[in-house]
Amino acid sequence: MRVYSIGVDLGGTNLRIAAVDSEGKLLEKLTSGAEVQRGRDFVIGEMCDAIQSLSVKFRDSAQLAGIGIGVPGFIDMDTGTVMRSPNLPDWINFPVREQIERKLGATVILENDANSAAMGEKWLGAGRNTDHMAMYTLGTGVGGGLVFNGRLWHGMNGMAGELGHINVEPEGHPCGCGSRGCLEQYASATAIVRMAHEAIASGNAQDLADGARGNVEFTSRGIYQLAIQGHASAQRIYQTVGRALAIGVGGMVNALNLPMFVIGGGVASAWDAFAPTMFAELKVRSFIYSITAQDHVEPGQKHTVVTIALLGSDAGLYGAARLPMLQTISQSQPTRSQAHA
Amino acid sequence: MRVYSIGVDLGGTNLRIAAVDSEGKLLEKLTSGAEVQRGRDFVIGEMCDAIQSLSVKFRDSAQLAGIGIGVPGFIDMDTGTVMRSPNLPDWINFPVREQIERKLGATVILENDANSAAMGEKWLGAGRNTDHMAMYTLGTGVGGGLVFNGRLWHGMNGMAGELGHINVEPEGHPCGCGSRGCLEQYASATAIVRMAHEAIASGNAQDLADGARGNVEFTSRGIYQLAIQGHASAQRIYQTVGRALAIGVGGMVNALNLPMFVIGGGVASAWDAFAPTMFAELKVRSFIYSITAQDHVEPGQKHTVVTIALLGSDAGLYGAARLPMLQTISQSQPTRSQAHA
Repeated sequence: MRVYSIGVDLGGTNLRIAAVDSEGKLLEKLTSGAEVQRGRDFVIGEMCDAIQSLSVKFRDSAQLAGIGIGVPGFIDMDTGTVMRSPNLPDWINFPVREQIERKLGATVILENDANSAAMGEKWLGAGRNTDHMAMYTLGTGVGGGLVFNGRLWHGMNGMAGELGHINVEPEGHPCGCGSRGCLEQYASATAIVRMAHEAIASGNAQDLADGARGNVEFTSRGIYQLAIQGHASAQRIYQTVGRALAIGVGGMVNALNLPMFVIGGGVASAWDAFAPTMFAELKVRSFIYSITAQDHVEPGQKHTVVTIALLGSDAGLYGAARLPMLQTISQSQPTRSQAHA
Repeated sequence: MRVYSIGVDLGGTNLRIAAVDSEGKLLEKLTSGAEVQRGRDFVIGEMCDAIQSLSVKFRDSAQLAGIGIGVPGFIDMDTGTVMRSPNLPDWINFPVREQIERKLGATVILENDANSAAMGEKWLGAGRNTDHMAMYTLGTGVGGGLVFNGRLWHGMNGMAGELGHINVEPEGHPCGCGSRGCLEQYASATAIVRMAHEAIASGNAQDLADGARGNVEFTSRGIYQLAIQGHASAQRIYQTVGRALAIGVGGMVNALNLPMFVIGGGVASAWDAFAPTMFAELKVRSFIYSITAQDHVEPGQKHTVVTIALLGSDAGLYGAARLPMLQTISQSQPTRSQAHA
């Protein structure tokens, strides 16, 4: 009987749930509004109903490995608790794993959404040929995930991979984390809009000001449209994004010597606006490797590949589905040894 | 019969070789001038003679696990080749492991000196209670080493752990690596002397200028003496060191969520001059953990410890000796799984 698992991606806007088999084939996907304003019990109830309907549907044709749930926020991995989440206001010290395991009687793995996305890209996306990679998720904020030896690196208590909070400007813009000048303040969708408003306020960005008046939604996507239409002030903003990414990624290239860095999230679709600056700066700012325009890892490769994510908004969903399968694998096989250990 | 190994620490100045048993007990240590100017064949010859004299001496009382050699520079781990080394000018693509294995007929492990120091501190020093740590070696340059699951993390081809080349000032001082504003340019002994000369040249550091005239050697240690004597311009330099370390370490705390960061190397002896600024800035610049003045890792710990190295200049020697023992262990046991894998 084939093995499958159920992945859940809970965002601030959508709740998406999928049954995926162990080869990465999508069996079925359900999407609904997350309705987080109706409270956590409502959301958990909706989630459990959808999971149950999928598990009933595939009960006779496949064996359920478990349920993986990706949520935004800080998670205590030992207890499966959401400690806090910017998008889920009432999820404070909320024991999600225990709640769902009790309702469904199945194995549940709770994971940070950026980590889930990293696992998705590792399994079926840009990182499918490598066991070691870092992923940056450029969205409302900047998330990150680290995969070492094919597994997510959680660190001491599940907080690892906060690659959006590497400093790229020592006295830069204040960050919600309490620091200032974090990558998140220069490479997130929020930061792009802020930088556009700053440019307009400075009086040196007439084309952005015109664009802002013309657009109903003045978003990072709208600013990208202005950039590809040739407006210099919009282009400069995406060059700032590229330079900030190069400082952040370059430091991690030097620190971790990984074969692959993957850039995903909504802002990654503006790749052609920020990637040229990013690659030019990476050549200077990561001292070991030549960075080539390559999108996969080759055997025996000696340089680092920096590339765009392939799974789009499905990365987190596939990654969440992968997690229970990996747990099954690690129970039956010894873990692979570390690179060059 | 007890097991021992021979560790070698080859610096630009000294060649140090020690026999160490598997409990970490020093059996014997030999120190001589490195005489690198006499060429690599001479150095290898001296090294092999000393190794041989130790192995003959302990032949009847202990079993040799192997030989670990720490050298400064870039090493290809697959082939045991020193690719290049700032302190060993003629060691270019030099197959050290093969040369020594042929001469001695024993297992040789070649390692970067900063990685060896990290392994030494993990085995017998500040990191002895933890399996996960990062070490910064503040010397002529700034080296680094990462220990995950009790083993050195080498990355794709042995270049990982270059923690001195994390950016701390985007448009800062040019670095030998080709980038600018690397941590090495603000926290190495070389950088401290440079910053003192810059301060004198700016005309705002009369006490440093007086100190420079009074001292025969105007070194990072001399500047530290001025700082602890209360000279404000010398104190400001060490505050810059502390701030740069906080930016570098803080980013890695957020990225890797390790329980321990260890600061070693010669400059670490100026701990009381830079640590207060480092801790104050770390509180702001690493957003997840409270950083406490703690020097060891406790079970169940949820915060990161940043502390001074304990083994001084012997860290690299002990770490090099540890490497062949770890190889023996990994051949007989499955590797431990990753934290929370």
